[in-house]
Amino acid sequence: MFDTVLIANRGEIALRVVRTCRDMGITSVVVHSGVDADSAAVRAADRRINIGPADPRRSYLYAPAVIEAARLTGAQAVHPGYGFLSEDPDFATICAENGLVFVGPAADVMARLGDKSTARRMMADAGLPVVPGSREPVGTADEAAEVARRIGYPLIVKAVAGGGGRGMAVVRDAGALLPTFRATRASAQAAFGDNRVYLEQYLHGARHIEIQVLADGHGNVVHLGERDCSVQRRHQKLIEESPAPELPAGLADRLAGHAVAGCRAAGYRGAGTFEFLVRGDEAAFIEVNSRIQVEHPVTEMVTGIDIVREQLRIAAGEPLGFDQDRVRRRGASVECRINAEDPARDFAPCPGTLTAFHAPGGPFVRVDTHAFPGAQARPEYDSLLAKVVTWGQDRDQALARMRRALGELRVEGPGVHTTAGLLADVLDDPDFRAGRHDTTLLDRRAAS
Amino acid sequence: MFDTVLIANRGEIALRVVRTCRDMGITSVVVHSGVDADSAAVRAADRRINIGPADPRRSYLYAPAVIEAARLTGAQAVHPGYGFLSEDPDFATICAENGLVFVGPAADVMARLGDKSTARRMMADAGLPVVPGSREPVGTADEAAEVARRIGYPLIVKAVAGGGGRGMAVVRDAGALLPTFRATRASAQAAFGDNRVYLEQYLHGARHIEIQVLADGHGNVVHLGERDCSVQRRHQKLIEESPAPELPAGLADRLAGHAVAGCRAAGYRGAGTFEFLVRGDEAAFIEVNSRIQVEHPVTEMVTGIDIVREQLRIAAGEPLGFDQDRVRRRGASVECRINAEDPARDFAPCPGTLTAFHAPGGPFVRVDTHAFPGAQARPEYDSLLAKVVTWGQDRDQALARMRRALGELRVEGPGVHTTAGLLADVLDDPDFRAGRHDTTLLDRRAAS
Repeated sequence: MFDTVLIANRGEIALRVVRTCRDMGITSVVVHSGVDADSAAVRAADRRINIGPADPRRSYLYAPAVIEAARLTGAQAVHPGYGFLSEDPDFATICAENGLVFVGPAADVMARLGDKSTARRMMADAGLPVVPGSREPVGTADEAAEVARRIGYPLIVKAVAGGGGRGMAVVRDAGALLPTFRATRASAQAAFGDNRVYLEQYLHGARHIEIQVLADGHGNVVHLGERDCSVQRRHQKLIEESPAPELPAGLADRLAGHAVAGCRAAGYRGAGTFEFLVRGDEAAFIEVNSRIQVEHPVTEMVTGIDIVREQLRIAAGEPLGFDQDRVRRRGASVECRINAEDPARDFAPCPGTLTAFHAPGGPFVRVDTHAFPGAQARPEYDSLLAKVVTWGQDRDQALARMRRALGELRVEGPGVHTTAGLLADVLDDPDFRAGRHDTTLLDRRAAS
Repeated sequence: MFDTVLIANRGEIALRVVRTCRDMGITSVVVHSGVDADSAAVRAADRRINIGPADPRRSYLYAPAVIEAARLTGAQAVHPGYGFLSEDPDFATICAENGLVFVGPAADVMARLGDKSTARRMMADAGLPVVPGSREPVGTADEAAEVARRIGYPLIVKAVAGGGGRGMAVVRDAGALLPTFRATRASAQAAFGDNRVYLEQYLHGARHIEIQVLADGHGNVVHLGERDCSVQRRHQKLIEESPAPELPAGLADRLAGHAVAGCRAAGYRGAGTFEFLVRGDEAAFIEVNSRIQVEHPVTEMVTGIDIVREQLRIAAGEPLGFDQDRVRRRGASVECRINAEDPARDFAPCPGTLTAFHAPGGPFVRVDTHAFPGAQARPEYDSLLAKVVTWGQDRDQALARMRRALGELRVEGPGVHTTAGLLADVLDDPDFRAGRHDTTLLDRRAAS
């Protein structure tokens, strides 16, 4: 096992990885920008190293600084968390070239899965159901119109380099196709330095179901069950849970089988997530996230498996040491993302300094947070403040505990609003309570 | 189920019960003394009611005020927590006479089990192994000397009305018998208003193992496995865990069988704990605690069962709804009691105002606490500030996470010391790590 791991991230996920390093007796090094010098992750880490200013392009996204920080601190491996460099195959390559283990799949595998158009093709070839759409990136307006005629409306234009809900736009009818096609290409170029896009049928009213996998590179691939992440605003998840409620019989197992087959086809190694859209009994693969997910704790609560620990063990070359039969799931778990955002202003981020922060506690509650009284929600970074996670013997019990936990949560600061109140309302939504909600839930609520 | 439950307690356990009431949709009423008006439990409760001044004899122990508070707030049931009125059969009787459900066993059952000498006899008759000792309370010095000759030294003088580690004294040799016998009678009279004592062989170097039971009064009795509570100072538990490490094969099951048999013999109803001393393959019953225990969370972590919920369901007359086969235990859990005490001054309580309090969080950590920045550790009450609980797939993992969690804990205040540092040291004790420690661990460490 590694002596020292560099954590190339910030916020709650950096702290999350520090905690597992501590559990495993691994020295943790957290990189940080100047404004994060006093963050919870930095405080908790064994070592810390300043890698640049607040602008992420000059710190958390700046590979030379991260690599040099690893060299200076004697780290043998780099855990990228989520976001930032976590799905950048070039960064994985640079790590390897500098004798560092990148905690994730091989760079070439990541590149193929990161190209969402290639990933679609690869998974279709491996027998996974995919949403009807273009097999190759669509380069011209004529090609786009031709694909649109074939798959119909509504459709979705997606950046090849996008993923995780970023770089996509829905097209409702033929009149909107060209403007949206062009706008998405332009914004993809700006966001990812890659203007390629592809088209998919848009499954309106679908549920977002995903499968957590672990593959050890020694031929062992297991899944840790499914998560339902259908409560979204602008393709960003807000509430996630495991197991998924009210799925048609056998569907979750079928998706898990697809994910395991997809892993084998891709030569995947590490923790990963296969995302599907589900409508009724129909399911279609959308993408693989080749990293730890924000919502991984619900799976940990249900399986008892520390997914970050498995990531580190796999990266160190260890075999999983357990097979599918040993993965036992118990009860149900829910996560609410507490973002520093104002739901009343279309979820606009509202950074600021927290004058008060009180996390819920007690039975069957877990909180992953980097917030504390005096902490800053910075405008440069993701607005996630805390993940409140509960467990129950069944979904109703987990949800009751979530209501209680959100009631105990206190986040205060001038100008700081959060998603907590909105999410508490969603918990009482009749469709959500019945488990028959889909990704349109928040839009429908906003419209009513 | 009850609409409204009055919680006749304070501190972390009052908050603990509020939380389960909230989960179950029950209105919670917390009684409080004047100095507890701003406590975490009071803040969290649906309703609060002041029942007197700081002196517990005039508030938390004062049955008329508690009963009147229940009447005024329309509560149908009283949850007594632990300590205070929780094992007072007179209070249970008064509740019944006033149309209130006491959350616990019937008053007469509690009276028989609360009389530790009677409980010993009852359990011996039910086939449980008991420590050699007097069958009846010992009233005179002559009787004491006669029993001592029969059972030998060291022996322990115990108050009939004691329990939970209070009202007992060890006698090493015949010379100390009479003074200790007289002193224990006098202190028992002062503490419990009952000077009766009995004598037992003192099992030096034994382990404290206890069985959690649930009995529903409809004939269903289940156990939730064992806990090891051998890390003690002056018979007060400091670290508890489940399962008990390194027990001889079959012993835990045997004790669980004894506890279930004891429940049936006593006509027990509610949650309860059967305590045993274990040395090698030998085990002996010592007492029943007819209430929720401080250390119940480790059992909740392993079984997934909310014990307070089961207490309320049983008190409302509901059958358990599950049998022994449905109680599935997973992994291992440890609890550390963070007391406002100074281990360097023989665990003297050190009350004061907390200027800082930061609870640990993250994967597989649970914290039950009433502490917050600005909270007071009061001299009138128990010194328990927080219970830090961790879970792991095995004991080593749970202990590693406990080390991490204690490292994250921050308790600060002028003059406030805690047990956290001492407990962190115990986690690294070779005997404790190997699971071969007994109740003498802390004394041995203090002496070395």
